[in-house]
Amino acid sequence: MRKNHVLAAWREDKQTVGGWLSMDSALSAEMMANTGFDWLCIDLQHGMLDYSDLKIMLPAISTTSTIPFVRVPWNEPYEIMKALDAGAYGVIVPLINNREEAEKAVSACRYPPDGLRSLGPVRAAIYGGPGYIQEANNEIACIVMIETAEALDNLDEILSTPGVDAVYIGPSDLAYAIGLSPTGDNNDPKHVATVNRIFEACKKHNIAAGIHTGSLEYTKRYLNQGFNLVTLGTDSGFMARLAHRELRAAREDTGTDRVDAII
Amino acid sequence: MRKNHVLAAWREDKQTVGGWLSMDSALSAEMMANTGFDWLCIDLQHGMLDYSDLKIMLPAISTTSTIPFVRVPWNEPYEIMKALDAGAYGVIVPLINNREEAEKAVSACRYPPDGLRSLGPVRAAIYGGPGYIQEANNEIACIVMIETAEALDNLDEILSTPGVDAVYIGPSDLAYAIGLSPTGDNNDPKHVATVNRIFEACKKHNIAAGIHTGSLEYTKRYLNQGFNLVTLGTDSGFMARLAHRELRAAREDTGTDRVDAII
Amino acid sequence: MRKNHVLAAWREDKQTVGGWLSMDSALSAEMMANTGFDWLCIDLQHGMLDYSDLKIMLPAISTTSTIPFVRVPWNEPYEIMKALDAGAYGVIVPLINNREEAEKAVSACRYPPDGLRSLGPVRAAIYGGPGYIQEANNEIACIVMIETAEALDNLDEILSTPGVDAVYIGPSDLAYAIGLSPTGDNNDPKHVATVNRIFEACKKHNIAAGIHTGSLEYTKRYLNQGFNLVTLGTDSGFMARLAHRELRAAREDTGTDRVDAII
Amino acid sequence: MRKNHVLAAWREDKQTVGGWLSMDSALSAEMMANTGFDWLCIDLQHGMLDYSDLKIMLPAISTTSTIPFVRVPWNEPYEIMKALDAGAYGVIVPLINNREEAEKAVSACRYPPDGLRSLGPVRAAIYGGPGYIQEANNEIACIVMIETAEALDNLDEILSTPGVDAVYIGPSDLAYAIGLSPTGDNNDPKHVATVNRIFEACKKHNIAAGIHTGSLEYTKRYLNQGFNLVTLGTDSGFMARLAHRELRAAREDTGTDRVDAII
Amino acid sequence: MRKNHVLAAWREDKQTVGGWLSMDSALSAEMMANTGFDWLCIDLQHGMLDYSDLKIMLPAISTTSTIPFVRVPWNEPYEIMKALDAGAYGVIVPLINNREEAEKAVSACRYPPDGLRSLGPVRAAIYGGPGYIQEANNEIACIVMIETAEALDNLDEILSTPGVDAVYIGPSDLAYAIGLSPTGDNNDPKHVATVNRIFEACKKHNIAAGIHTGSLEYTKRYLNQGFNLVTLGTDSGFMARLAHRELRAAREDTGTDRVDAII
Amino acid sequence: MRKNHVLAAWREDKQTVGGWLSMDSALSAEMMANTGFDWLCIDLQHGMLDYSDLKIMLPAISTTSTIPFVRVPWNEPYEIMKALDAGAYGVIVPLINNREEAEKAVSACRYPPDGLRSLGPVRAAIYGGPGYIQEANNEIACIVMIETAEALDNLDEILSTPGVDAVYIGPSDLAYAIGLSPTGDNNDPKHVATVNRIFEACKKHNIAAGIHTGSLEYTKRYLNQGFNLVTLGTDSGFMARLAHRELRAAREDTGTDRVDAII
Repeated sequence: MRKNHVLAAWREDKQTVGGWLSMDSALSAEMMANTGFDWLCIDLQHGMLDYSDLKIMLPAISTTSTIPFVRVPWNEPYEIMKALDAGAYGVIVPLINNREEAEKAVSACRYPPDGLRSLGPVRAAIYGGPGYIQEANNEIACIVMIETAEALDNLDEILSTPGVDAVYIGPSDLAYAIGLSPTGDNNDPKHVATVNRIFEACKKHNIAAGIHTGSLEYTKRYLNQGFNLVTLGTDSGFMARLAHRELRAAREDTGTDRVDAII
Repeated sequence: MRKNHVLAAWREDKQTVGGWLSMDSALSAEMMANTGFDWLCIDLQHGMLDYSDLKIMLPAISTTSTIPFVRVPWNEPYEIMKALDAGAYGVIVPLINNREEAEKAVSACRYPPDGLRSLGPVRAAIYGGPGYIQEANNEIACIVMIETAEALDNLDEILSTPGVDAVYIGPSDLAYAIGLSPTGDNNDPKHVATVNRIFEACKKHNIAAGIHTGSLEYTKRYLNQGFNLVTLGTDSGFMARLAHRELRAAREDTGTDRVDAII
Repeated sequence: MRKNHVLAAWREDKQTVGGWLSMDSALSAEMMANTGFDWLCIDLQHGMLDYSDLKIMLPAISTTSTIPFVRVPWNEPYEIMKALDAGAYGVIVPLINNREEAEKAVSACRYPPDGLRSLGPVRAAIYGGPGYIQEANNEIACIVMIETAEALDNLDEILSTPGVDAVYIGPSDLAYAIGLSPTGDNNDPKHVATVNRIFEACKKHNIAAGIHTGSLEYTKRYLNQGFNLVTLGTDSGFMARLAHRELRAAREDTGTDRVDAII
Repeated sequence: MRKNHVLAAWREDKQTVGGWLSMDSALSAEMMANTGFDWLCIDLQHGMLDYSDLKIMLPAISTTSTIPFVRVPWNEPYEIMKALDAGAYGVIVPLINNREEAEKAVSACRYPPDGLRSLGPVRAAIYGGPGYIQEANNEIACIVMIETAEALDNLDEILSTPGVDAVYIGPSDLAYAIGLSPTGDNNDPKHVATVNRIFEACKKHNIAAGIHTGSLEYTKRYLNQGFNLVTLGTDSGFMARLAHRELRAAREDTGTDRVDAII
Repeated sequence: MRKNHVLAAWREDKQTVGGWLSMDSALSAEMMANTGFDWLCIDLQHGMLDYSDLKIMLPAISTTSTIPFVRVPWNEPYEIMKALDAGAYGVIVPLINNREEAEKAVSACRYPPDGLRSLGPVRAAIYGGPGYIQEANNEIACIVMIETAEALDNLDEILSTPGVDAVYIGPSDLAYAIGLSPTGDNNDPKHVATVNRIFEACKKHNIAAGIHTGSLEYTKRYLNQGFNLVTLGTDSGFMARLAHRELRAAREDTGTDRVDAII
Repeated sequence: MRKNHVLAAWREDKQTVGGWLSMDSALSAEMMANTGFDWLCIDLQHGMLDYSDLKIMLPAISTTSTIPFVRVPWNEPYEIMKALDAGAYGVIVPLINNREEAEKAVSACRYPPDGLRSLGPVRAAIYGGPGYIQEANNEIACIVMIETAEALDNLDEILSTPGVDAVYIGPSDLAYAIGLSPTGDNNDPKHVATVNRIFEACKKHNIAAGIHTGSLEYTKRYLNQGFNLVTLGTDSGFMARLAHRELRAAREDTGTDRVDAII
């Protein structure tokens, strides 16, 4: 079976940088995969993507050695199993609140006797290669999101759940959880303290610590802090940010106003 | 009929800034359309797009007042007519070499008696609104590409063709045409002189002058020169450039190497 | 944030007429949106549509000021959240039986602290514009369906649930619920009485009353009764009804029988 | 090979009523096919459809005994051949001007030695069944459109071309051709006379006469006149006409104005 | 309503042979449907298919008299209802563990008062024809999968659930359930004994017995044993197996090695 | 630039075995690419595929080192250029009749000054990697089909056209060309002699000789004869042949007749 070198790196406490995919385009996915990210995550929770997009985006990523993850829309076993059957080498499961939910997520990722994953890795066995069924339980990353008040109360019991490989922090929902407004890259001391607390808990439980960002600045901050998986940005965000920035500069520097009539 | 305010602007020698679409995603198109470009061009020649993409991308653009253009794959009347029926407010026709080809392109854009466009503006009449059939000949932009050696020999006869509204320069193919290597943003004196010659010919014939670029620098240069339609960049280019730039910075500034194993 | 003028109208007890979308076509959606309905509902429960259709149909509707709703397939939080992230300005949630289920539906529609909606309005923020996150809780309509026997028993507790903006009656399932055969437009006295009872309960609780129909006749009846949201018909229904009617007339009036051989 | 009972009917001068497909939906196509039309034509010239739509729409039609035709976008041999390979039992070829073009269209429809159709009926052989290759030349309808001034000058030479099975009149383009404004259902005496002239020429040359309409009224008129193939209307037209009509009635009869705010 | 002749055959203890669909292609589905299987099952659990594939694959199957089934991804009422609305004549529901789950599956398949299926058979009523709503409860097959340890403990209570028409054995998951490695076609005595036990239980409760295989050998074995529904193989499996076998033979018999360079 | 090891092999007169793709499925393409063919050809001429399928099928093939070719629908420059821009490493051009047509095909494959290919290798530059523009003229295979009577008359002038890398024989059309019925694998002495004549001409002109087959038997025959590119079979053919064969055996060996009612 093809090795999950990203998961292997986390197990050695190494650090990785990832990208986020929100656009339903094989071309976009293939270009992002050629950028040099350690891993890419196809987002089925927010964004405009659905399961049917996996079948064109996962092959596009698989043209490179970038490791493909999928954020499933919910902690729903069959959504997790279908993403894995399609060839995801890890799932990011949103809104895990307690031990029971963490165990449910893990169980959907593991074949018996470790879990209840049903057998039928149609594309996964092609992508993963010979030995997939035997080795998948050890190569597929189960990544749980910590982003609710309840999860903060149950941090240790979630992070100590056998089979949880990593935590992924959703900063906006986390802000809601601690009574702040939902800023993505958040420097509020209360937010920083909460992120730090989660980070320390990951280290204590020997699992990888991860977080979403929307900027180079915060990516560097979290890498410097020791996070193992940090998302630098999103396909659509990279596109829109640079287009906005350069269009504004082009207009301002040359005095070319928009001719657009008001309709 | 909804007015083509971009074409109206060109007729007053005003300047416009456009974007280029190469990704088959309604989300990508809608985000680009919300960036503030005067117009967007969906590229059916290069890139990975085909006619079937128009039916999802044109509505996405039409959620804004950005004017939609289509670069057709070839000077083929039915490809032009289908793009217009789908609601394009202008076509960019590649590789026009002489008067006859320019007339063929114009003819496909105009209903009789001005041309041979066949009647059936299924979506165009929805987007354009009442009066489309009566006014379309005056609102639809016919934009010819000058990018071959033969075209340079026939510049005046092409630019004086009745119904040609604008010229669009393809810098890479133009470089080939004058014996240079196919750089996009090209500062070779021979290339600059050729661009200038085409620009002057447009001004002489009172049609809009346009050019493709891949950078803010060249966009500003051509806007400062007086070009009427300048393409700032491409959806995929904005995405890939910023992703590359920030990923490199994140890795270098934090010493986070790629963990990717060689396969 | 773009205002939800349909919801605003309901709050003033004004009446609106809507259409129903069951066909997976951007063209169909755009044509329906140009017809003049106050709102259109994309049906993900019955019909042949799935989440992946939203990404092409919602932009098509957004070319007009028609307000887009989505009927989700089930009272499943992530299905509601994904529809809203895609830009729906309201969800119709089927088969609400009691207060708990109504609260669950509302919670999925509201950001904290009002509910548990997760943050990531990828297309919604584009369609809704600046301020979406701050104002969405007040602009997004949560519409619950009353169509089961259990719901009839719990009418007051459902309709008094904070955050429920409207009720939508599904006449066929309602007929089942009261022991009748599942006719859509139903004049059975027992059905009429039940509809009236629900209507009165809506008025009592100051929420909008809505109902599905399949005909002009019943649409007028319910508008005359004071319903706030009445569905006139479905894209496929309009098509099939007129095609059937005119084809029969053409054949009968001219004696043109079907030549179709029996296979 | 499955018989083309529509073509057989024409050969006995029988009359058929058809429908027109412009929406990219398998559901729409299947519903239209269940309406009772003798044949349906998928329009690849105007409308928003492309070859890729055939692969979902043709099977949807093939669930019934309705005969599937395709209007190709142009008299381009490979577009004709691909439509036939996909299982079309006839092609409507637009804008035929003279004998040479008619022969080109026929040639693309017929296997050698009758024509130059290349062999590879991937889906056609499934739909047509055993014997397809041997019998296709006799079962596939080649239908040429007469709609240009040049065609009117060459009527006899076009209609006498061996292999041309029918003529299809495009009333709007025909109106252009004779200097009128492009009304679809056209009662201008000059238009009527031209239609009559084409009809008579078809009868003289023993080929089927066909025409496009947009109304029941004109369909009955042309059926009464003896036309062999008359299009009653279009999927999108049926939908939009009835939706408009009933929505207007619902609003007017109940005084329910649109609440839609001006944006 | 079109009869479900496969279900009728099972009721007479007749035997049927089916095929499995895992590829998202209308062409593939139509070719498989023309092969002569009694029924085909579109797999939404494993494989790469999602609900959106049903809308193109079900019409492709409906061009023949082959009966279409869908394996839903989970025992989720709305997934079952949507598959049925799309025209499936039966659902295979995975991972049924006990009576309660069996009742839940049945309930989603039956209109009131037999169950809680919501009314809206958009395509099903077209495919099924007049009388669908009245007769569907008797024609739609509810097929439960027995493949877990818990199910083996509850065999009688599951198989005696009113409305359960058949059992389908998933041999790989069943192997897990009894502590074996997950071989598909499994000759381990313990596996054989368990299959036999389930088969006998089906006979005892007068419901159809079914099983998945991956080979002609096991298909014949189970047909000889008396199973009522046996899956011979999968579209992708047929393709890949023959391609592998013939490619190896071609290379070995002619000494033509792969020229593929190592990349 | 990634090397075209198949073209390199032909230049050393080595032999390769290929497969043919006719189904619009990324899964199918990826499975075929994992079978071990030297190359795969996506067929846009016959079959049900169109340009829009390339964008999902080419990435699926690119997950392996199998070289991707595309059979374009016609010797149309823009169809060739678009296939190459999408990442095809060679095009098979049907129905080449003479030197002029061969030169036209070559020209579309080569950047200036060798040809007239327009610059814009959007996906090709990603798949091919750095140096694509500089090296593409030497790595992209231009493969012409010899299958018409006219081509047989002009064999030497076609095969000696600079830039033609290989010939591909279409046996069915070739049979038509020499007055035989269109059998694919054809043992008619006249057909054999014609194939031999083309093969010898290829050897004389030092270009690769290729041929389509539908069986292992003919693949071995042509490999033994020395052909450089031999197509073993088609995705859909492998699937349908094995499904038919095994279904018949299963029914016959067990006496399980089809229960299918006659409709």
